[in-house]
Amino acid sequence: MVELQNDRFLRALLKQPVDTTPVWVMRQAGRYLPEYKATRARAGSFMDLCMNADLACEVTLQPLERYDLDAAILFSDILTIPDAMGLGLYFAEGEGPRFKKVITSRKDVEKIAIPDPEQELSYVMNAVRTIRRDLNGRVPLIGFSGSPWTLATYMVEGGSSKDFARVKGMMYDDPVSMHLLLEKLADSVTLYLNAQIAAGAQAVMIFDTWGGLLTPKTYKEFSLDYMQRIISGLQREAEGREVPVTLFTKGGGQWLESMADTGCTALGLDWTINISEAKQRVGNKVALQGNMDPCVLYGSPDTVRQQVNSIISDFGEGSGHVFNLGHGIHQHIDPENVKVLVDAVHEFGQR
Amino acid sequence: MVELQNDRFLRALLKQPVDTTPVWVMRQAGRYLPEYKATRARAGSFMDLCMNADLACEVTLQPLERYDLDAAILFSDILTIPDAMGLGLYFAEGEGPRFKKVITSRKDVEKIAIPDPEQELSYVMNAVRTIRRDLNGRVPLIGFSGSPWTLATYMVEGGSSKDFARVKGMMYDDPVSMHLLLEKLADSVTLYLNAQIAAGAQAVMIFDTWGGLLTPKTYKEFSLDYMQRIISGLQREAEGREVPVTLFTKGGGQWLESMADTGCTALGLDWTINISEAKQRVGNKVALQGNMDPCVLYGSPDTVRQQVNSIISDFGEGSGHVFNLGHGIHQHIDPENVKVLVDAVHEFGQR
Repeated sequence: MVELQNDRFLRALLKQPVDTTPVWVMRQAGRYLPEYKATRARAGSFMDLCMNADLACEVTLQPLERYDLDAAILFSDILTIPDAMGLGLYFAEGEGPRFKKVITSRKDVEKIAIPDPEQELSYVMNAVRTIRRDLNGRVPLIGFSGSPWTLATYMVEGGSSKDFARVKGMMYDDPVSMHLLLEKLADSVTLYLNAQIAAGAQAVMIFDTWGGLLTPKTYKEFSLDYMQRIISGLQREAEGREVPVTLFTKGGGQWLESMADTGCTALGLDWTINISEAKQRVGNKVALQGNMDPCVLYGSPDTVRQQVNSIISDFGEGSGHVFNLGHGIHQHIDPENVKVLVDAVHEFGQR
Repeated sequence: MVELQNDRFLRALLKQPVDTTPVWVMRQAGRYLPEYKATRARAGSFMDLCMNADLACEVTLQPLERYDLDAAILFSDILTIPDAMGLGLYFAEGEGPRFKKVITSRKDVEKIAIPDPEQELSYVMNAVRTIRRDLNGRVPLIGFSGSPWTLATYMVEGGSSKDFARVKGMMYDDPVSMHLLLEKLADSVTLYLNAQIAAGAQAVMIFDTWGGLLTPKTYKEFSLDYMQRIISGLQREAEGREVPVTLFTKGGGQWLESMADTGCTALGLDWTINISEAKQRVGNKVALQGNMDPCVLYGSPDTVRQQVNSIISDFGEGSGHVFNLGHGIHQHIDPENVKVLVDAVHEFGQR
């Protein structure tokens, strides 16, 4: 393996000294970039793009050509595991992800098999290997997965949901089936992330997009405990370096302490918490990633710079901060504002 | 005025002793009830129903016929004020509220006039008077309004929004116009709620549906400060009784302390916080209303009873709890489960 030229991102996650605050952007390879839209049009469907290692690599590297980013993230989807379980993932235009089959009963759950990452998900591992080769040590590569609870919501609802009636109905009324589903998902995610690490991912992140819609008790029982189980099963060293694990529950600001107790390396923060408060609550245990409101990018360059400066000042002294948005970047923002953001982080983050 | 036969709800909000925990349900007059759907079909559009005092009264009283509820809530919409400002509220089937005109510039904001509640909103006041007459002292009547920030989001976006790009863009880039809009809205809401109180509302509630999508700093500056301004301007006594004011920011669990400092009587809680923790954080200052996940009502009667019992146990000793859901009731739940809920609250809440 070639030597890593920029390890600022990995160092910050491990709370080691850095010259300036590292930055990457959730969904940085995405529809706000015209070059992404061009590749996407060549690929066919969104899943065709994910399944073509060369094109997935191409879009992964596109934002690095434009911006001085400190990490690349595998181009893929959070729902690859349920797809590999045979549910048939597809994307209806403007409607978000959908599954052809849904899980409605204990029987459905029992039939689910745990996918072998190098078989049913080999396209993801091929993408990881291709991206690592083409990155050529420029910045580290992040692998990722959806959390068991988040995957379960899509599998039971059949897609995005407004009120999560079906999945919560199953959770409240048939917790045994729900736990069986979540166990299978946790085992699948563990294998999947370990395979990504073996293929070359230098850090991993678990996206718990819908954990924030639970109560404190059900969050612990149906989301957090399964993420903890995954974390315990992860290969935490590769290529002679620690592999940091970042946990991100959107809307999880009230539960940071218990999230920090899972053994993860860092917590992703949405924008509903001040990062100084988050640091006070959990800063000794974990690093923090975030947490600018993605809507700031609809503002002027001056607004973007002010907000970046404000978050970096709020974080204050010491290492342990990876700058990011509090959620994925929106498709209609001006790509020039991302350059303003990235450069402002490196300017204001200097030590 | 006839004497109030059941003042459990008002007493609990004021933390006075009660025989059992009072309960009402957000959106209790709504589409989950077949009799509501029948009246709605007779009325014409949703706004026709709101604007017809007799029919608005009819649907307000419907859930009280079925369930042993401790309060009635005015049947109306949170967006009546922007409609009275001339924006043209309408409801596209299955799409939620929309406005014919939207606010896009300083000029638009400057043109807005503050509605006179007894003129442009006289249909609401007529509904309040009609409902009070027909309630005949059975339970207290709650009046309400949307919060200035929540109203502003609909006025700038033109309806519901996925990412609130326009309203947050204006907030970040043109805070002066946004503050002017919010000032006008705060003054309008103050007049509107005071008129409801004068017409017979015995408690009022401010619904801040979208405040939880702000950062801590912008929540304070663009939502909370305007709610505080409203609270300071409210008529807090009527018919020889205190008029309690409940503040509800959906997703505001992280900011309860500052919400409790506004001078309100009670806080509405969604389900992402344990009510025992909320009580510990703010219980001496305010009463608490909530906080069952509305999705519990998709469960079995046993599940509903268990969850009710769990929340009442978590609240623990003392008065100051009004049982409710953490958000509006969903339309596809079984109405029988609401009876289970209401009866379970009165059973488990006994002192």
